Amino acid sequence: MNKKSLAVVLLSGGMDSCVTAAIAKQNHDLAILHLNYGQRTERKELECFESLGDFYECKHRMVVSMEHLHVIGGSSLTDKTIPVSNANLKTRHIPSSYVPFRNANMLSVAVSWAEVLAAVSIFVGAVQEDSSGYPDCRREFYDAFEHVIKTGTKPSTNISIETPVIMMSKAEIVLRGVTLGAPLHMTWSCYQREDIACGVCDSCALRLRGFKSAGVEDPVPYLHRPAYA
Amino acid sequence: MNKKSLAVVLLSGGMDSCVTAAIAKQNHDLAILHLNYGQRTERKELECFESLGDFYECKHRMVVSMEHLHVIGGSSLTDKTIPVSNANLKTRHIPSSYVPFRNANMLSVAVSWAEVLAAVSIFVGAVQEDSSGYPDCRREFYDAFEHVIKTGTKPSTNISIETPVIMMSKAEIVLRGVTLGAPLHMTWSCYQREDIACGVCDSCALRLRGFKSAGVEDPVPYLHRPAYA
Repeated sequence: MNKKSLAVVLLSGGMDSCVTAAIAKQNHDLAILHLNYGQRTERKELECFESLGDFYECKHRMVVSMEHLHVIGGSSLTDKTIPVSNANLKTRHIPSSYVPFRNANMLSVAVSWAEVLAAVSIFVGAVQEDSSGYPDCRREFYDAFEHVIKTGTKPSTNISIETPVIMMSKAEIVLRGVTLGAPLHMTWSCYQREDIACGVCDSCALRLRGFKSAGVEDPVPYLHRPAYA
Repeated sequence: MNKKSLAVVLLSGGMDSCVTAAIAKQNHDLAILHLNYGQRTERKELECFESLGDFYECKHRMVVSMEHLHVIGGSSLTDKTIPVSNANLKTRHIPSSYVPFRNANMLSVAVSWAEVLAAVSIFVGAVQEDSSGYPDCRREFYDAFEHVIKTGTKPSTNISIETPVIMMSKAEIVLRGVTLGAPLHMTWSCYQREDIACGVCDSCALRLRGFKSAGVEDPVPYLHRPAYA
């Protein structure tokens, strides 16, 4: 049996990155990377990260503290003086949970690691269409970043950024996850709580709507279930 | 008097970033950013950073630990099992002190901070021509990164990356520094030592050659002075 090439997967512990890992696992061994940046649900995310790492038999795991994103602030995810806004899925705005340039910070770490590990790809579970309007969740951003990798690493380094779920709806992601046997019960999406998902933040709302549209029961417990879920 | 716009300056404590700060100071108030990534001369660099911050009256100062670059390794600057190679100024190779994708990690932090501070520019003291062959010290890399900023931040955010010394020789940088009254005695370039500069590492060699060509006495003390200095 040929040894599979290595891919670095950004694994937040949420549903999107879990399904992205399931897709990556079809062709690669996985090196998983989790970034702590002072988010409210850090402990729970880390628990999911480790469970998913066990599930996908990942030998390479790295957890990086990006405490500076907390110090810099500017987001309800990292600054407790800014409230987490409840979901408004009808408007297209940049939500208060936007962490300035977060994904570039994460990708830069991933590229440094990938270059040393000689990984061929970085997998990111970003979602453009059915997501919350973050500017750094669009393929255009990842294309631009791929060009930065080409210009900023050794000539022998060749690392692609793969965003396999970027054009999927949350419902499609749920269905792909089910098809691939992804352990969705090991994932966490809530921005506000760690014991039981709140059901009303942006992230819960999108997740619940996705499972509903897919006709699949979300295995995670919720405090509130909005009317549409 | 009009309030000047704010610029973030990546300030390593070395000569190039000091002169870059002097150039930025002509038109901006400065927010200075220092990145610790487990480099051997961290303590000395930090001392220079604070001295330069006082000199340029910087209200905004941030020191960020990028310990992950140390964990990831792959460079003689952060991995003590890889020796710091002595200078070989005749060959064009990527030296062992190359830290994989370091500058993208630094720039990402700078952009997050600049977006929250509403700074208009990020100044980087990268040098292409007279430098050590790092892939992420070329203007092409910074152009690519500017495009990432455009695609990955809020539509209202507009941040340029300024690399005013990128095409200068070390000698030109020394002369520009002298012209602008930059405090070169407060800078440190040696990769190996913190008490007295070694004089033989890549960075010392380039610096010494630069001062020599400029006909200026380097105010920093050296353990060895190679024949060309």
